[in-house]
Amino acid sequence: MNVVIAQSGGPTAVINASLLGVYKQARQWGEVDTVYGSLNGIEGIIYDRLVSLNEQLATEEQQALLRQTPAAGLRSCRYKLPSFEKDPAVYEQIRATLEKYDIGAFFYIGGNDSMDTVDKLSTYFASVGCPIRVMGVPKTIDNDLMLTDHTPGYGSAAKFVATTVWEIIRDATVYELDSVLIVEIMGRDTGWLTASAALPHLFGEAAPHLVYLPEVAFSAEQFIEDVKRVQKQSRTVIVAVSEGVEVESLSAYQSGKVDNFGHKYLSGVGKCLEDLVKEKIGCKVRSVELNILQRCAAHIASATDVAEAEQLGATAVAAAAQGHTGEMAAIQRGVGEYNPTYTTVPVCEVANKVKYVPREWINEQGNNMLPAALEYILPLIQGEPATITENGLPKHWIVK
Amino acid sequence: MNVVIAQSGGPTAVINASLLGVYKQARQWGEVDTVYGSLNGIEGIIYDRLVSLNEQLATEEQQALLRQTPAAGLRSCRYKLPSFEKDPAVYEQIRATLEKYDIGAFFYIGGNDSMDTVDKLSTYFASVGCPIRVMGVPKTIDNDLMLTDHTPGYGSAAKFVATTVWEIIRDATVYELDSVLIVEIMGRDTGWLTASAALPHLFGEAAPHLVYLPEVAFSAEQFIEDVKRVQKQSRTVIVAVSEGVEVESLSAYQSGKVDNFGHKYLSGVGKCLEDLVKEKIGCKVRSVELNILQRCAAHIASATDVAEAEQLGATAVAAAAQGHTGEMAAIQRGVGEYNPTYTTVPVCEVANKVKYVPREWINEQGNNMLPAALEYILPLIQGEPATITENGLPKHWIVK
Repeated sequence: MNVVIAQSGGPTAVINASLLGVYKQARQWGEVDTVYGSLNGIEGIIYDRLVSLNEQLATEEQQALLRQTPAAGLRSCRYKLPSFEKDPAVYEQIRATLEKYDIGAFFYIGGNDSMDTVDKLSTYFASVGCPIRVMGVPKTIDNDLMLTDHTPGYGSAAKFVATTVWEIIRDATVYELDSVLIVEIMGRDTGWLTASAALPHLFGEAAPHLVYLPEVAFSAEQFIEDVKRVQKQSRTVIVAVSEGVEVESLSAYQSGKVDNFGHKYLSGVGKCLEDLVKEKIGCKVRSVELNILQRCAAHIASATDVAEAEQLGATAVAAAAQGHTGEMAAIQRGVGEYNPTYTTVPVCEVANKVKYVPREWINEQGNNMLPAALEYILPLIQGEPATITENGLPKHWIVK
Repeated sequence: MNVVIAQSGGPTAVINASLLGVYKQARQWGEVDTVYGSLNGIEGIIYDRLVSLNEQLATEEQQALLRQTPAAGLRSCRYKLPSFEKDPAVYEQIRATLEKYDIGAFFYIGGNDSMDTVDKLSTYFASVGCPIRVMGVPKTIDNDLMLTDHTPGYGSAAKFVATTVWEIIRDATVYELDSVLIVEIMGRDTGWLTASAALPHLFGEAAPHLVYLPEVAFSAEQFIEDVKRVQKQSRTVIVAVSEGVEVESLSAYQSGKVDNFGHKYLSGVGKCLEDLVKEKIGCKVRSVELNILQRCAAHIASATDVAEAEQLGATAVAAAAQGHTGEMAAIQRGVGEYNPTYTTVPVCEVANKVKYVPREWINEQGNNMLPAALEYILPLIQGEPATITENGLPKHWIVK
């Protein structure tokens, strides 16, 4: 019997650590001969593009390189599996490929769209009496999955955001002039990643002075009032804003395009706030979009995140070996101490749902984080993994 | 006798290492009692805002924190010293403050605008028989200073750019679709920093496929032809472009503002090329502006750069102790092996001049780097400095 792994959705710094976790645990699963990788997510199974990973990940050095390589080593897709009623042929095609390679279990590493695929596929296999197990391994910098304390990829992205915002604070405060610096941060409809920009508060830094999450309705008038109020205390005002914050005049800055899941491509809220400050206040203002750097900056990954991502991959395999299917590996946080433990949860309760930042972690005015949010994030950014470099640059693993 | 240090111009990851180099060498200069820092560059001297650094940098931990803190620890300015003929009063004010604090030597860490200040001030002091020495310590991520092999700050910025562009290459190539990814890189009128985006070529990476420097005239038509040609080999096309590249239709994307030195605020060439691709090719396209991250990302500084920045600070002090004035510390590269040595050069030959990337380091078509450029840059990005972190984030030194 063999198994297959695929990766889907937007890249993260640690999605390959989960791939490694699945690979290593599968190699220890007595019944498994070959661990296959499917190129470009589920599309690689539909179009029969499977590659054996047994030789490509045989050595400790290959494994270490995979672990430190950002983005999806098996490449990715944004393919939305249609419902069985709508297109039964694609389900049969997937089953045909899996049976051709004698696959006993399929592991899908991804966000809530990928969990939708795990849900649909495991339901289909159960309904036709096909014994192939389908398990999900969570991944998203957005941290918006239900039933897991947090998602792999989030801790590293949060570490990048907090470190970078703190460096930007140093950079932006060197001149003696009134200025506003706006940092736009990813996260789609949730503010988890933007919240991490406030981590410097834990170390006595007053900035960022204003933090706006999509969980709170945004008012352009209130924003300008907020900036003016901070300007009375600080000549430089640092603002962190989530890409998902809805500003009335924003449509002109966005392309209006949607991806295959109907998500809008979000971009432009930082630029929009920059123009608002220019128009209503008139001081020097700059916006910085952290852009895709925040999801692929493996050079500043969190060692905690890397280890957890790998462990979740292993957890999914261990559960599949016990016969589980239609589940997602998940992290539980200890009471009191952080102390994470690993489990699996029904994927149908995760797919297509969104977990938001609790309102009580945001201040009453809706323009900054409270300590509870920062205490939640802090354990997730701990530790710096050892990195293999060559001539001053981190090395990458490339699939053959 | 005492000395004073100031920092000016745009921040870098290692300008504080130079500050530390000046401080430590000055503390070893037998005649010196107090090492002062002037807040906000030369403005701190004009307005009498000097602080003693003796206690603030007394311990090894304080020194290590300063060394790893990005941006200007003594804060910065963009003040242009008027000519003596135009405003003799400001020269007398500077002299008055320096004499009030019994300053024997003034060290100015900055780019070519700051070297203009060193030149004017040292010329003035010589003309009035004032014995105060004025020495420059180079600093700029742009690497555009004459008479030094390279400038501190450049190596760290180049390491950040090369590492990040390589991570972006991984991120941008995960999907199976035709796409163009454009990275806009700083450097004003020169392409030194953009050239570093091509360092992954040394390790067998084909991307970035196209690299545009301001040293070569840019044609929008040729750019579209270049992209279409690369698309025949690679579904994802990665482009690195310098902020200083002049595109005809660019003016709509720029604010048109200039700073006190008459420099245009450059921004928007990436967005402009993105729109060009959208209009002329129509595939998925994204532009990423590395923005101020490239000058303040101390978390991925080059250990070589940090050490050289510190050594140049010490070199300026050692020369001043021997009676030199009106000079800038500089790095010379060995013949054959890298092997850097330190010297001083007349600042009048540096001030207000610009060093460009040699045309022979760019390919004939003007759209990529040749190996000579990469071999020049490679020694400058070597090594990762040890970093003091607290709870997962690098710690910073803050002036009191």
